[in-house]
Amino acid sequence: MSSLTLADVYAARRRIEGRVTRTPLIESAALSRIAGTSVYLKLETMQPTGSFKLRGATNALVGLAERGHGRVVTASTGNHGRAVAHAARALGMQAVVCMSALVPRNKVEAIDALGARVVIVGNSQDDAQVEALRLVREEGFVFVPPFDDMDVIAGQATIGVEIMESLPDTAAIVVPLSGGGLFSGVAFAAKRIRDDIAMIGVTMERGATMHASLAAGRPVLVDEVETLADSLGGGIGLDNRHTFALTQSLADNVVLLDEASIARGIVFAYREERLVMEGAAAVGIAAMLDGRIDVKRGPVVLVISGANIDMNLHRRLIQEA
Amino acid sequence: MSSLTLADVYAARRRIEGRVTRTPLIESAALSRIAGTSVYLKLETMQPTGSFKLRGATNALVGLAERGHGRVVTASTGNHGRAVAHAARALGMQAVVCMSALVPRNKVEAIDALGARVVIVGNSQDDAQVEALRLVREEGFVFVPPFDDMDVIAGQATIGVEIMESLPDTAAIVVPLSGGGLFSGVAFAAKRIRDDIAMIGVTMERGATMHASLAAGRPVLVDEVETLADSLGGGIGLDNRHTFALTQSLADNVVLLDEASIARGIVFAYREERLVMEGAAAVGIAAMLDGRIDVKRGPVVLVISGANIDMNLHRRLIQEA
Repeated sequence: MSSLTLADVYAARRRIEGRVTRTPLIESAALSRIAGTSVYLKLETMQPTGSFKLRGATNALVGLAERGHGRVVTASTGNHGRAVAHAARALGMQAVVCMSALVPRNKVEAIDALGARVVIVGNSQDDAQVEALRLVREEGFVFVPPFDDMDVIAGQATIGVEIMESLPDTAAIVVPLSGGGLFSGVAFAAKRIRDDIAMIGVTMERGATMHASLAAGRPVLVDEVETLADSLGGGIGLDNRHTFALTQSLADNVVLLDEASIARGIVFAYREERLVMEGAAAVGIAAMLDGRIDVKRGPVVLVISGANIDMNLHRRLIQEA
Repeated sequence: MSSLTLADVYAARRRIEGRVTRTPLIESAALSRIAGTSVYLKLETMQPTGSFKLRGATNALVGLAERGHGRVVTASTGNHGRAVAHAARALGMQAVVCMSALVPRNKVEAIDALGARVVIVGNSQDDAQVEALRLVREEGFVFVPPFDDMDVIAGQATIGVEIMESLPDTAAIVVPLSGGGLFSGVAFAAKRIRDDIAMIGVTMERGATMHASLAAGRPVLVDEVETLADSLGGGIGLDNRHTFALTQSLADNVVLLDEASIARGIVFAYREERLVMEGAAAVGIAAMLDGRIDVKRGPVVLVISGANIDMNLHRRLIQEA
């Protein structure tokens, strides 16, 4: 593992400045009342692509552009794919996003609308990944990893710096946990700035690869299953280079949530905070509501990672509640 | 009318810095597609009290605190009342909000939760206003006007500076129009920074006092009626000192909307932008959707003034759509 420094994070911030939003950090009156201490929300939902992923992708792409690269490829159909497409367009780079034929049309159109070239190949995400790697090998594209990459991690880490600058007495930060790029970036920056901060990861019971890997002491495979927190699904890579070790050393606790809890988080965010967020982003709120975050003192900051929920699903959830 | 300068606006910004949010300015992909040019949203919904009113109230209160005042009063039960309560608490000042016995309990509780003292008096907003003025006369409180006050206007004008700094080539700014504090502040700052910017006010057909006053050439009374854009209701004061003349000289156009149009704006914001906003804030979007904003070129910026909609109403609107 090459080592990350806070200076790398400041360099990332300088690189992405003006290209990503310094997102608002707002107090949730309703959660503060429930928790008995100040609870703040760091709203990455306000990024131009609707998720924090724009920070890491932008940092990676600016770095690539500086080194003379003009063509990038990824296989993500979700927030990372959007982020790469958006950042590439802003930088005048060519972006290709490989997807399988099974990807729903609205996701294809979302990437297409951001100006990336969509390549449809095969019938699984693995096929799409193979095509992406072929473009790297044979056509000189650079692959932009979704999380296990130091530039990506440094980009996400700028969230930690922003939180600590705005609220230096933060006692705990709660972060959605998936591949660990967001978690380890935020945790690294926050603990470098004040090492007694509690870093809590939250994820769903259904397909929690990082949690299973932490329990096993090494990266393991976990079947991906349907969940309201779909952005948190997927593997961490059996050959994980950075985020497993970082998460292992930086996480003070990992909380697992069931689907009903995640739904409550989404609905609470809408009703009490007038915020639309995807399931992955609502896990911190859900964990607070379930009393799963051990709040000895505040302020507590919840990183609200993204807004890209299917709006028919959202409407159904708030209607059923 | 004492005259406003851009330096007053910069002074306001320095005063409110760290107390209000520099709100995100995000492109709306859906509106840009519809308009054929870039359309941006300035999200005052992200202020701690959920509306732009915090800027003006904070600027006024910091000024009062600097001049040795410690006690303020207002009669607003809505966004201005919340803003005064929030700003007073942050500054360690005492705030009283006078309301009539007819104000719904949830509004009373919202102000109470922000630490202001709620005084219930009489059965109309006029009674509440009389009590507020008694506190000024007999108990040394300072009244904080909701819009017709230079410090309040200068606070709202910081929005105009932020827009122009972020997007110096802005061609038009669309602003919800009520008492004119927001409109004239934003318009003043924007036109001082680049005088060829088109400033468009949008309001509802039902009870548009400023529009009727502009048509009459002087402040007039208009009956207040129920509307989805309830934050835009109310008079401008027959003895209006600042905002009428400012709006008269700065508005390039004023657009009036019916209730169905405002509802479409609220629903569009939810479905396409994943944003919850009150009716008053959605009028710019509604006017764009109705083709009422003459877009010769962009970028166009819509000021999204606040989020404080009744959530049962919001849920009903998105369900019926």
